Amino acid sequence: MTCALQRLDDTAKDLLFTGARTANTFTATPVTDAELTQIWELTRWAPTSANSQPLRVLYVRPGAGRDRLVTHMNEGNRAKTAAAPAVAVLAMDTDFHEHIPAVLPFRPQLRDVYAGDDTLRARTASFNATLQAGYFILAVRAQGLAAGPMGGFDTAGVDAEFFPDGRLRSILVVNIGHPGPDAWLPRLPRLAHDDVVRWA
Amino acid sequence: MTCALQRLDDTAKDLLFTGARTANTFTATPVTDAELTQIWELTRWAPTSANSQPLRVLYVRPGAGRDRLVTHMNEGNRAKTAAAPAVAVLAMDTDFHEHIPAVLPFRPQLRDVYAGDDTLRARTASFNATLQAGYFILAVRAQGLAAGPMGGFDTAGVDAEFFPDGRLRSILVVNIGHPGPDAWLPRLPRLAHDDVVRWA
Repeated sequence: MTCALQRLDDTAKDLLFTGARTANTFTATPVTDAELTQIWELTRWAPTSANSQPLRVLYVRPGAGRDRLVTHMNEGNRAKTAAAPAVAVLAMDTDFHEHIPAVLPFRPQLRDVYAGDDTLRARTASFNATLQAGYFILAVRAQGLAAGPMGGFDTAGVDAEFFPDGRLRSILVVNIGHPGPDAWLPRLPRLAHDDVVRWA
Repeated sequence: MTCALQRLDDTAKDLLFTGARTANTFTATPVTDAELTQIWELTRWAPTSANSQPLRVLYVRPGAGRDRLVTHMNEGNRAKTAAAPAVAVLAMDTDFHEHIPAVLPFRPQLRDVYAGDDTLRARTASFNATLQAGYFILAVRAQGLAAGPMGGFDTAGVDAEFFPDGRLRSILVVNIGHPGPDAWLPRLPRLAHDDVVRWA
């Protein structure tokens, strides 16, 4: 059988894409563990190559965990993270291949292919975890929360602090909350369509 | 001022995340250039670090362009791409920094920072183009189209064929169309929540 797909309506497109913005301030309204769990319940379904799913999420809540994280943020990002009601540290699992027999049951031997090829394994982890980070940011928005993604932090410091066994490597930090006063800076320009899109 | 955000409703979550699937067959219904343009009109707004926007999109339509692409796909992907009414080759612009003064007007000197640091420039191009590839896949779905992302192709062959000047490097190929008969394979398992999510 075939099935027709719907289009997202304009309100939903606005929420995820056209009207969405990176929040720079947050209200004091807490973000619950249930809300954070729901973000992953959306993200998990989006596709990765060989179903590899290498992204891992460390949710850091106000208190000691957040204090430890803030010290590793670049100076310009510290106040934002210190005020965010929840923060996600997104990381790649460099040993994601150990799950291959469970997640790719028709081709379990791919585990050994990745185990024997460090370059392929690292590239697969990095590429697919980053794809999933894109899905994650849109899933935060889909849950009615504002996302503040930041690459400006000391990755080695964060990894030593939170992932001391060396298996996970941080790729992005995302502040999460409800947008506060003056949360949005003026929107930056986007490239023209013809600068990006070509045809063949 | 502050503003409350909505949540995506269950139908929309289903379309993008929970019910969405990678399509393996397509109907003969064409995908119009206007639809392909609209995919980019959503993708373009999602965030990148320093507003770098390194993703480039080559839309390949049925005919000579698609025939040229199919020869570079892995054998198991050729029939799918040969039957897709539209295909996107997603690539990173390794010289994205030339646009920095236009897209980051308050810090135009970042162009020169990227120009002088090949490692930083390559990493920024790769990471942000891949994030944008994640946004792109969900934007295809938001337009009511099915996406079939594939990493299995000869990147050097595609780059030589379509990007001979060496500036762009392909990262992902995405078949696009309306789902055909038996478009969906059984859904593969996802990692358990506790295998992915940690708390601090």
